[in-house]
Formats: sequence, C-alpha cells, structure tokens
Amino acid sequence: MSNPSNTPEYYINGILAGDITVLSRAITLIESTKAEHQELGGKVIDGIMHKTGQSFRLGITGVPGVGKSTFIESFGLHLVNNGHRLAVLAIDPSSQKSKGSILGDKTRMEKLSVHANAFIRPSPSSGTLGGVTKNTFETILLCEAAGFDFIIVETVGVGQSEIAVSQMTDFFLLLMLAGAGDELQGIKRGIMEMADALLITKADGNNLQKAKNAKTEYTHALHLFPPSESGWIPKVEICSSIQNEGIKEALQIIESYKNLSITNGYFSLKRKQQLSDWLHYSISEQLKEKFYNHPSIKEELKNIEKNLDSGKINPYRIASELISKWKN
Amino acid sequence: MSNPSNTPEYYINGILAGDITVLSRAITLIESTKAEHQELGGKVIDGIMHKTGQSFRLGITGVPGVGKSTFIESFGLHLVNNGHRLAVLAIDPSSQKSKGSILGDKTRMEKLSVHANAFIRPSPSSGTLGGVTKNTFETILLCEAAGFDFIIVETVGVGQSEIAVSQMTDFFLLLMLAGAGDELQGIKRGIMEMADALLITKADGNNLQKAKNAKTEYTHALHLFPPSESGWIPKVEICSSIQNEGIKEALQIIESYKNLSITNGYFSLKRKQQLSDWLHYSISEQLKEKFYNHPSIKEELKNIEKNLDSGKINPYRIASELISKWKN
Repeated sequence: MSNPSNTPEYYINGILAGDITVLSRAITLIESTKAEHQELGGKVIDGIMHKTGQSFRLGITGVPGVGKSTFIESFGLHLVNNGHRLAVLAIDPSSQKSKGSILGDKTRMEKLSVHANAFIRPSPSSGTLGGVTKNTFETILLCEAAGFDFIIVETVGVGQSEIAVSQMTDFFLLLMLAGAGDELQGIKRGIMEMADALLITKADGNNLQKAKNAKTEYTHALHLFPPSESGWIPKVEICSSIQNEGIKEALQIIESYKNLSITNGYFSLKRKQQLSDWLHYSISEQLKEKFYNHPSIKEELKNIEKNLDSGKINPYRIASELISKWKN
Repeated sequence: MSNPSNTPEYYINGILAGDITVLSRAITLIESTKAEHQELGGKVIDGIMHKTGQSFRLGITGVPGVGKSTFIESFGLHLVNNGHRLAVLAIDPSSQKSKGSILGDKTRMEKLSVHANAFIRPSPSSGTLGGVTKNTFETILLCEAAGFDFIIVETVGVGQSEIAVSQMTDFFLLLMLAGAGDELQGIKRGIMEMADALLITKADGNNLQKAKNAKTEYTHALHLFPPSESGWIPKVEICSSIQNEGIKEALQIIESYKNLSITNGYFSLKRKQQLSDWLHYSISEQLKEKFYNHPSIKEELKNIEKNLDSGKINPYRIASELISKWKN
C-alpha cells in the first residue's frame, strides 16, 4: 500500500488546511537534498504558490548576546496576543558559539513556542551561513500558505546571510547593544545601513542611560546617510524585553513602515523585485553548485588556490579555462 | 608578412619597457570581445603577471557633480610632482549624464593628462556599470607591469561597480558634498560604510563652514559604525581642489593607511583574498554569461519575467528547470 505522505496532495491539502504537523514535514521535505524529495517538494510548492504573499516578512539580526531570542519571545507574544499568527524561522542555537548569553542554557522562546498561534522552526543551516539557506524563501512560502500572517527570519549578523534575508523580507531590524567598542565587533560592515530600524536592547537598570545616549547618537548618525528607496527614514528605539518596554513601540514602527510603503507602492514594487532577484540568485547559485561540485573541478581548484599568491596565476583566464573544461 | 603587433611578445616586451603606446594597445586588446583578441590578450597577461602587484591601488567614487575629475587632477598632480608614476582608469565622460558639473564641457584633467608620468585611460563600459568592468582588474595589472606605482580607479557611485572596485583596490575613497538632502541622493546605501575615507569637496568660499560642519558630523557618525577588518578607522577630511587645499592631507591619510595595513599584515592578506575573490567572481560571471546568452534561455526568461508577479511562478524551481535544459 502506497504511503499517502509521499504524494503532493497530502502536503498541499494539509498545509492549506493549516495543519502544523504537515507544515513541519513539508519544510523537512524541501530541506532534504535527495532527488526524489526535491522533486516532490517542488510539486508541493507549485501547489501552494497561489496562497502566498499575504504575510508581513520581518528579518531580525544582531550578534550573539544582544538578546535576539528574548526580544523575539516578547515581540512574538505581543503579536499573537494581538491576533496574529506568527511563524519564526530561528537560528538553531546548538550550532552557535555561545557568546555570553544571559540566558545560558535556558530553552529559547519557551512561552512563545507553546502558544497556539506561534510556530518556531530552527534553521538547519545555521553556523557559517548565519541561519539563512536557499530553503528559507520556500519555507516562508509554506508558512504563508498554512495561514501565518507574520513571519520572522532570524540571522546572526556576521555573514552573507543578511543580504539574503533583506532580499526576502519586507523590513530589516537590527538589534544592538548600547555603546561603541566591543559591541560593534561582529557586525558586518554595511549591515547598519541596510537596517530599516535599529533597536537598542537591554535598556534597563544601570544600562538605561547608556541606551538612551546610544539612541540619540544613532538617530543623528542615520540622518547623515542616504535615504532608503522607499522614502522611509530608519528609526532608532530602545527596548527592554525583561521589563517588556519598547515592544509595542517596535511594532508601531513596523506598522508605520508598512503603511508608508503600501501607500506609496514601494511594498509591492519591492516584492516584485525580490521575486526577480530570487530567480536570478537561484540561477547563479545552482550554476555554481553544478560547477563546483564536479569532481575534477574540485581537484583543480585545490591546486589553483594554493598557487594564487605566487603571482603567476591569472584568475580571469583560469576561470575561463575551467569553465570550458567543465562544459565539455 | 605577419604583423609583429599580433604577437604576445610585442605587447609583453613593450609593456615591460614602459612603452605607453604599447600599453594603450594592450588595454584595447583585452577590452575586445573577439575570440582571437581574447586569446592573445590572455597570453599577454600571462607574460606580465610576474611584474604586477607593486602599486598602490586607490578606488575613488562619488556622484556626478561632486568634483571627481577636479580632485583627481589636483591629487594626481601632487602625486606625479612627488615622483610617482600614476595611471588613472577614468569614467568616460561622454557616456555620463551631466549633473550640474561646474566644469561643464571643459576637458577633464587637462594638466594631468599631458604630464609625462601620468596615464589616463577612459573606461569604455561606463554608464550603467559606473566605469568598472571585468577588464578593469587586468588593466590594473597591465599598468603595473608598465611601471606605474599608483593606480586610481574612478567610478560613479550609483551601482554595483563600487563593490567590484573595493574588491580590486587597497583603499576606497568616497567624495561627498557638504550637507544632507539632495547631495545624498544617488549614493547607493552601503557605500558610505565601505569607504576608508570620506572627502568633503568644494570646501571654499561660502561653502567652507558647511563643509567643516559636515566633517564634524561624519567623523562622529563613522565612530558609531563597526571598525574595518584592517583595524583602520575611516577618516573624514575636507578639500578644495580650486584652492589646492586638503590634497596633501588626503595623501597623508592614504599613506597612513598603507603603513598601518602593511605593518599589521592586512595589506597582503587583502591582496591574497582579492585574487581568490576575483577567481570566484570570474567563474560566477562567466557561468552566467554562457547561460544568459543562450538564445532559448533568453526567450524563456522574457516570458518568465512577465509572469513573475502572477503568483504562480516558483523562482527556485524555474531556475532549476532552465539550468537542466541549458546543460542538455
């Protein structure tokens, strides 16, 4: 007897009905690299595409230790208590180096993870990529088809993944600690300019004044930088998840952005551009995958990398030769 | 009788002897897309690679109207008068929209272009790419082999080319006008954070105080941002090419960076990383070129782009199917 969970219909119907078990299985399916799973997953995505796009997609980043999970829990609870259905694509904490997290080994997002209207999914590809993979976009689509109207994608803030996340979300939120110096270490240059809002965390106790000062400084600094294409001026706010302060304000900022960008047409323009970018990004990534995974190419590249700084290697020509070899 | 200028030796020997006419022809050769020129050019590059790497490579960007050519002329004259041999890979002005340039139709960099120790080469691919092409890196190599010890690459500051330029230069200089508002328009977000120094131009006359204020503000703002991997804190300076002020200071900043980065090893680390990045960038670009230029792919993509926001297109799967078709 054939297994019903091997058919596209099982997944499509379950997801469209909002069945979280089926949603989880579908995400696992598209994460699998096996050819038959890839094929099945493709049909599932095709079958639910028409019911996607209706959520608000929020990217959240910040270095380990800034309090991302604490913030997402507070912010997430605020969302679900206000009637939203929230999906969180989170970093898998077991693969992150601990960097002085106040919570230590405490389970992340305890309260949120058991809420009926919240769904938390750890990303399997965290670590070097900071939590974002080629599957993340499709996972967003699956969650939307399952009825989630707010989606959070969390990344670590130290790698290429932030560019990818800003390309698949509507709003990019950067969490930061107050004060310059060590707290700035680990944030990749360029990310600050990408942010639609900066949220300075742990604004409580002895740290409160420091956080307020940082807010003033960054608000002023951001005005010196070019405006976003949306016409939105990035906002700076302080928050304390422990005292549940600044959480309402963070949501108000996001809603304010949503209103502005929907009104001036930028929201749908950006979504359309993101689909196009995602198509070309997928093309580029898959071309490279096929090339770099070829056994003889792997072999040759090892040698080339060793000799790169001998001064005798001409990178552009080497690339040309390798590609000709690969095509034939 | 065979044409001696069709042999690699003609170019290699001429370049290594510092012959500017041969250098110019070599650059034209590598810019040509004809297969036989590409092949010949490749051999030329192979033959001069051993004599490259000894220059300081400076990228300069800023929106049209900020005074790039005026600055490059003043700065360039200062360099050659101090014993340097300078090559400038410049934007071809005829393909740029004029944006209120004070100089109007005046020939760019008049004095510098006739100096014995300066070589100015307009880039043929300006416009949308802002002056940087896949040939730019090889042009740098050719100029170095011809004995130039300081190379300036100029871009427009509004496109992808700035990322490319920062990947092939040692130092990235952003020219800006004083004051926020309109002057910030046209600078792509993220570029400011990439800059190793900001130079506020036209710091003279009625604009002097405004320029000084801008310097104070930006110096403060840049301290709020993550440090560069080199440990260098970006500097802000003002200058007036007309009054020849700030030009010496600009060079001192660059020399200060050079000393720091050579001492702490970052200079050669970056150069090595750039070679590797260039190899992988070349692979990626050439793979895409072969793919996108295939006639049936072009045809299919036109249809796909039209239907992208119908909500029925799954970009990742479409990419997969297109690539399978192309490989077969």
